[in-house]
Amino acid sequence: MSNSAKKIINDPLTCADELFEGLVLAYDGKARKVGKRSIVMNDLRPDAPALLIGGGAGHEPIYHGLVGKNMGDGAAVGDIFAAPPPDIVLEATQAVNRGKGVLYLYGNYAGDVMNFDIGAELAEEEGIEVRTVIINDDVASAPTSEKDKRRGVAGLVPIVKIAGAAAATVDTLDELVRITQKAVDHTRSVGVSTKPGSIPATGQPTFDLADDVIGLGMGIHGEKGIALIPMCTANELAPKMLDLIFGDDMELNAGDEIVLFVNSLGSTHMMELLILLKSAKPILEARGLKIHHTIVDSIVTCQEMAGVSISIMKLDDELKRLWDMPCESVGYTKL
Amino acid sequence: MSNSAKKIINDPLTCADELFEGLVLAYDGKARKVGKRSIVMNDLRPDAPALLIGGGAGHEPIYHGLVGKNMGDGAAVGDIFAAPPPDIVLEATQAVNRGKGVLYLYGNYAGDVMNFDIGAELAEEEGIEVRTVIINDDVASAPTSEKDKRRGVAGLVPIVKIAGAAAATVDTLDELVRITQKAVDHTRSVGVSTKPGSIPATGQPTFDLADDVIGLGMGIHGEKGIALIPMCTANELAPKMLDLIFGDDMELNAGDEIVLFVNSLGSTHMMELLILLKSAKPILEARGLKIHHTIVDSIVTCQEMAGVSISIMKLDDELKRLWDMPCESVGYTKL
Repeated sequence: MSNSAKKIINDPLTCADELFEGLVLAYDGKARKVGKRSIVMNDLRPDAPALLIGGGAGHEPIYHGLVGKNMGDGAAVGDIFAAPPPDIVLEATQAVNRGKGVLYLYGNYAGDVMNFDIGAELAEEEGIEVRTVIINDDVASAPTSEKDKRRGVAGLVPIVKIAGAAAATVDTLDELVRITQKAVDHTRSVGVSTKPGSIPATGQPTFDLADDVIGLGMGIHGEKGIALIPMCTANELAPKMLDLIFGDDMELNAGDEIVLFVNSLGSTHMMELLILLKSAKPILEARGLKIHHTIVDSIVTCQEMAGVSISIMKLDDELKRLWDMPCESVGYTKL
Repeated sequence: MSNSAKKIINDPLTCADELFEGLVLAYDGKARKVGKRSIVMNDLRPDAPALLIGGGAGHEPIYHGLVGKNMGDGAAVGDIFAAPPPDIVLEATQAVNRGKGVLYLYGNYAGDVMNFDIGAELAEEEGIEVRTVIINDDVASAPTSEKDKRRGVAGLVPIVKIAGAAAATVDTLDELVRITQKAVDHTRSVGVSTKPGSIPATGQPTFDLADDVIGLGMGIHGEKGIALIPMCTANELAPKMLDLIFGDDMELNAGDEIVLFVNSLGSTHMMELLILLKSAKPILEARGLKIHHTIVDSIVTCQEMAGVSISIMKLDDELKRLWDMPCESVGYTKL
């Protein structure tokens, strides 16, 4: 086997299926395997609209680790770094549907959009109503005027959390769509990369990055961002990241309450996340923002890639009420 | 600054203090800084015995990220990879004490034992009763006959969770000590290392390890384990790890219920944890063990070190009842 990256795996070509089997075990009987590679909660609220999330594997715990109580009802899982095929999306759709329709919620990547759209067509042929909300929180991936080209990154965590809370409480797919779209509209993220991860199948780096630079705004697969900047301190990096969010079209005014999420893309250690959080504090304070809840964790990853992202979700009364609901999943749990 | 490891920090020599400031922010007002570098919950149950945890920094989220509801009442925090000094232990002790005494719970490392013991003497001079339970779950660090030489590793997470639940419910320090010691007696761990992390102050590796070997039973700072074994698959590694736990003196019989914790030591990706979990499943099933709760996460770390550990806590009725209580902290939350 090729394992220059020293990954603890069995077969480089079966990682997605094997991690999926482990994931089902990690749910301790609360969720089950459906079809080829979907995971669905066992106890679903009757007569309710459903929340289906999904995406490629290799980025654990997202998306399939975000299934759970007041989180996703189910997830369609792709191969490593690949969108779930339409038949998997369909199998997941059938399993989560309870007669009130299904919301697809996933990140804005071409393969995911294509496959979920085909899955939606197949589901609608079976009489299942499907709506879609696409996550596009990455302000560094396209200008404000071209939001439909923006990638979905770590903002997905608070967005899925809100959508899951909504799915547990609302009665119609329209309401679920409305709230989830608001969560997307209220969320912005920016990420930086310092080192690539490695591809499980080959052990090769997921992208190239020189030792003395940071990829500002770089995507988690190495997609182009804003610029390559010299390696710098946390105090220098925090304003560069936050200014990209502040410069976007989501108004953030004094007194606004936010959820703040500092995420490691893989091997960046929590020590660094906490130091970056400390560096961000005076900048957020100067703007008068009130942090309602802070998450410091590694949830949106790309193997052992190094880098961090900062996500901000602006709360209004409705989003705050949904935020304050508890949730439980393998990847994110809140009391 | 020396930053060959590309860490997102400010000053290599102030990492412990800066991450601590970030940690206090991450608690969103639920905990506060006390003295030089301790963190203590704001709402503590009156007239109750206290649970103080602690250890060196650089291993986040442990120990200081495990303060919270039904978790530690407070933590004394050392410098990077260094035990908290006695004055910090004393300051934390004073802050968590509510007249019913304080339990010190920490991992078995010489510096921690020395400093917490001096802290206990200082506290007792002030009339605060202190008791100590030492975590020594690492079966690979010394033979069964020399348990007092064993290191504390990832088993600390379920142990602190149980101790925190006990501290929230019992009325006497004796009871807290009894239950916490039982949690320690019921917990075994074994870890493996595949790559060192790097020291924040120097950027140098925390230890040396050849590219083609795994350190079986190696400690999180590179302490000697059982053996260096050739790099292998998850299916080959799982029995090697579990046999070390099964070969120890804690009886694990068919029908026993356990908490299973698969932990990344830093940069080992959750994909790999899940694949190792899948590899462990048939071995646990063959022994007739019933998994009551599974944790798959990166909680006990050493910077961007690669490697995994497996911890097993055997539940009895009392431990199971305490396990099932919810808990909340920056590092581990359970609904």
